[in-house]
Amino acid sequence: MDISIRGIQPHELSALLNLYKHLNPKDVPLPDELSVQQIWNQILSDPKIECFVADLDRHLIASCILVVVPNLTRGARPYGLIENVVTHIDYRRQGVGLRLMHHALQFAWSHNCYKVMLLSNAERQEAHQFYERAGFKKGSKIGFVATPNTVSL
Amino acid sequence: MDISIRGIQPHELSALLNLYKHLNPKDVPLPDELSVQQIWNQILSDPKIECFVADLDRHLIASCILVVVPNLTRGARPYGLIENVVTHIDYRRQGVGLRLMHHALQFAWSHNCYKVMLLSNAERQEAHQFYERAGFKKGSKIGFVATPNTVSL
Repeated sequence: MDISIRGIQPHELSALLNLYKHLNPKDVPLPDELSVQQIWNQILSDPKIECFVADLDRHLIASCILVVVPNLTRGARPYGLIENVVTHIDYRRQGVGLRLMHHALQFAWSHNCYKVMLLSNAERQEAHQFYERAGFKKGSKIGFVATPNTVSL
Repeated sequence: MDISIRGIQPHELSALLNLYKHLNPKDVPLPDELSVQQIWNQILSDPKIECFVADLDRHLIASCILVVVPNLTRGARPYGLIENVVTHIDYRRQGVGLRLMHHALQFAWSHNCYKVMLLSNAERQEAHQFYERAGFKKGSKIGFVATPNTVSL
């Protein structure tokens, strides 16, 4: 397979949204097209947000988001956050995701990040092994998540 | 104590840096003043990054960073990330941090976030109880962290 890992192009919004169907098959619907386009423009125009994709013959088969956040601790080195890691269901277990993670981490290190973090569903053992293979350490940090419903204050 | 929770002001950089000494007492040194000021300007000018503080008689006694990231999954609702949560050592266990977290979460919900996440050192049991009291759920997500040194790809 001749796969290239690269930043997404502005015209690839609909291809990305199709790929996201493989991330959360039962996801809630998107708002109207104009709102989606505005969010897309926000993502594209923000130098702190990178959307990386794996491209096989002009088809997007995997993607992830990397956010690089400016920071004033740890020698003022930024930290990175990875979200929305997805590989098309037909192309899993072929190393595409690993190449994508490798690319995202290299980007983060080249931007001087002192760490890159992510949270993974506790039940997804397979994803955990994937992230460990990709160079992430498990167990040193506990993930905490709040949602509008669970806030009890 | 008459404490107000609010966004940080541009002139409060040095007060924030002093407060950060209570976060990582053995943190690596910051770069030169100009570089720090440039990063500070980046943080201040980015509408996606909020630095909240607890102010007691014009002294900063607690702070946290909230990043609100535009997103195209989950109905295109953004997600939030909280980092650099710190309370001055003289003002811990007095509910200041809880009020700060509450403020940050309310801000996130008012900006339509579908979740707010954070990672906490696995060994800091006390911090875990704090985050659970603040409305965060533990155990549903595993934290993964990569650093430049642990990357083995």
